[in-house]
Order: sequence, then C-alpha cells, then structure tokens
Amino acid sequence: MSKQLLLSNIRNVLARLEETIIFELIERAQFKRNDIIYQPGFFGLALGGESLVGFHLLEIEKVHARIRRYTSPDELPFFRNLPEPVLPLLHYAENPLRPNTVNINARIRGIYEEEIVPYICSSGDDMQYGSSSMCDITCLQALSKRIHYGKFVAESKYRADPDGYRLLCVTGDQNGLMKKITDQGVEEQVLERVAFKAETYCRELTGDGGDPKIDPVRVVDIYRRWIIPLNKEVQVSYLLTVEK
Amino acid sequence: MSKQLLLSNIRNVLARLEETIIFELIERAQFKRNDIIYQPGFFGLALGGESLVGFHLLEIEKVHARIRRYTSPDELPFFRNLPEPVLPLLHYAENPLRPNTVNINARIRGIYEEEIVPYICSSGDDMQYGSSSMCDITCLQALSKRIHYGKFVAESKYRADPDGYRLLCVTGDQNGLMKKITDQGVEEQVLERVAFKAETYCRELTGDGGDPKIDPVRVVDIYRRWIIPLNKEVQVSYLLTVEK
Repeated sequence: MSKQLLLSNIRNVLARLEETIIFELIERAQFKRNDIIYQPGFFGLALGGESLVGFHLLEIEKVHARIRRYTSPDELPFFRNLPEPVLPLLHYAENPLRPNTVNINARIRGIYEEEIVPYICSSGDDMQYGSSSMCDITCLQALSKRIHYGKFVAESKYRADPDGYRLLCVTGDQNGLMKKITDQGVEEQVLERVAFKAETYCRELTGDGGDPKIDPVRVVDIYRRWIIPLNKEVQVSYLLTVEK
Repeated sequence: MSKQLLLSNIRNVLARLEETIIFELIERAQFKRNDIIYQPGFFGLALGGESLVGFHLLEIEKVHARIRRYTSPDELPFFRNLPEPVLPLLHYAENPLRPNTVNINARIRGIYEEEIVPYICSSGDDMQYGSSSMCDITCLQALSKRIHYGKFVAESKYRADPDGYRLLCVTGDQNGLMKKITDQGVEEQVLERVAFKAETYCRELTGDGGDPKIDPVRVVDIYRRWIIPLNKEVQVSYLLTVEK
C-alpha cells in the first residue's frame, strides 16, 4: 500500500498540520478584523472585481501553480484557470487517490472569511491590510489541506474494508457513509490534542508582546465546528465518486 | 513624536516579531535541508538563472509590490525593478525615517541560506521543495523586517539625544556609533525572552506529530549570532546617512 495511505502516516500529517494551523491563526489574530479586505471591489478596478484577499490569493496561486504546487494530490487551488507549471517534473509523484474533482475551497473560503476571522480577530481596522491578507492566505491554504486530506483518510478506510463500503458507495448512501467513516473516539482524541497544543501556543508568555492571542477554547471550537465536519464531508464526497 | 518612534512601541513590534520568527523557523524545520532549492539554475531555464527559492521569492515580491507592500517604511524587498502598486493609496502613510537606501537583504539571504537553514534543518532531501521554499520566503521576510527595524530604533535613539549623536554621524565614526547604540542589558533581556518563548514553542508536546522541532538553544543562537548584530549594523548604517 502507498505510504501516503498508511493511517499512521496520515495521522502524523494531520497532527503536524495542527501546529501550522494554530500558528497561522495566532498570526492572523494579531491584526484586527479589517473587514474591507474581504469586500469585492473595495480596493479599485485593478483587482478585477475581487476583494483584496481574493486578488492576493489568486495572484499567489498563479505563482504556486507555476512552481507546480497543484500537481500534488494534497494541494487544491481556490481558483481555476491557473497557469501551467514552469518547473520540470523531477520525479513521478505517485497519486494513491482515485480520479475525483472534490474541491470545497469555495465553501472553506466563505466560512473562513465570514465565521473564523470574526471569531479570532478583534473588530476594527488597523490598516494592516497587506499583512492581514498574507495571513489569510496561509490560513486558507492550511485549512484547505487539512480538510481535503479527508480524501486520503477515505481511500485508506475504503481499502481496509472494501466490502463494507462498496454498497454504500454504489447506492450513494450519504448518511450511511457518514456513519461508517465516523469514529467518535478519534475525534475526541484530536480535540483533546488540539486543546493541549492551543493552550501551550496561545499562552501569553511575557506580557511584553502586547498583542492579544487567541483564546485556546476558540481554536478547539474551530476544529469542532468546521475542520472536523468539513473533513468528514470530503471523505463522504470522495467515497461517492469511488465506484463510478 | 511619531507613534512608530516611541521606544515602547518599537519594543512591542520587535517582541511580537519573535513569535513570527520562531513559528516560521519551526515550520521550515519540519522539512529537510533540500539543498537543491538553493542552487541557481538547478530547476531549469524557465527560472531565469535563479534557484527555486530565488525565483519563488522574486515572484512573490512582484505580487506584494503590486499590493503596495514596499510603500511601507518597515518592508524592504530582496529584488529590484518590481512592478508598481495597483492599489490606490488609501491613506497617507507617515514615514518617520529620513530618506535612506539601507537594505542588507542580499546579506540576510546569504546568511539564511548558507548558515541558518543548515543549522535548523536535518540534512537530506524529502522532495518537499515547494513547501520548503514557501517557509523560506516567510522566514526571510520576517528576518528582514526584524533586522531593518533597526532604522526605527536608530531614529528614535537619535531624536532622544541629537547632540550625543551628531558628531559621530558627521565624522562617520562607525565604532563610536556602534558603541553608543549598544545596550548590553537590553540585548540580554531579548535573549532571555527569546529563550523562554523558544522553550515553550519548540517543546515536543504530544509525540504524535512525529516531526522533530528545533532545539530552542539554536533559536537563541540565531538571535545572538545574526539577528541582533545585523540589526545593530542597520542602526549604524542608518545613522551614517542622517547628517548628509
């Protein structure tokens, strides 16, 4: 079996992404909400109707597409029609997933901008528009990777028990699939580990830094309300394409 | 006096940048050294003779220049001839610095690639070239900001004691200026605070994550060997331009 599908490896990747996500949320939370950076058109015509964050994200994705980011099966773009890679393929990247088009980045972006930013940032405007949007992009990319890693989780579960999954997949039984992939015990473990990490990283260490950090409870809540449920949705959507 | 020149505000900015720098170093250290990403020309002709990191950094700087990053006096690019901003100037950004061209980013990049990466990453190649170079870019930007913040420190010190500085500046007395700006007590405080933060953030929390973090002693060492001395160099270089 592909190394990428070993459940122990998947769990390591997901656990390591917790650091990335918590660090990036803390970075974003040092700035205020800065609502105008999410308003389409606010920064003028040169942004093609996009918000500042949307424009910035698109331009960064163009750069990343050119250096081959999206040829990796664990990276999905938020935009379409990105340029071709300019890098030669140095090695054959084995892709253990089945062909699929599952990509919920549009929803992730909506939830991030409308729910998560207001949840972690204090309201107001500090004019740190560029810095805030840089943090937004790294947050969005980390969240997208974490959530879409559900594809690897689903493929791994499927291969471990194809007979248990096949009928649910063929009949498109979403509720049945959701029930079958759900492991309440593992979810609780994740939340406990995230709580422990968030308490460590979000602690006010010296009082010198000035900037407020995030309440660790909110980090756990972001996992509980959005990251874990969206990851499970990706698993179900992926499994529905498996037997086609 | 400009808010940006209040020594208490400067210290807050520098203290907050410690989180950013430590987080970014931890992020980079999850990947191996991946030496080939620093080799000019290795990834083909399309990169214009640059290394992968150089090409990636240049392309990101073009995006950031367009959204006005380098109109801010505390952000300096690594490359020249970047495109003009496409964003309208929303407000007049007050610049409390005197006109100057101090920019040691070329040296910062050399030290980062040749000294810091080998110091924090385990040797070898894990083929995570894109991810590693993304971390490199955010590390380089954070280090550059931290180091060039010396301009604000120097301007603030100068304004607090112009008579004490003027002759040293006029006569170009580098050693005298270095002595005058040096405050051993503050440097020790910074190193102690960085040590405390690094010990917290670099701790292996659960054993689940798998990836080794950085030895906190090395983070302190990066401050002692490079960040603080280069910051002081920037202060001196800036002061030498003040009375011209």
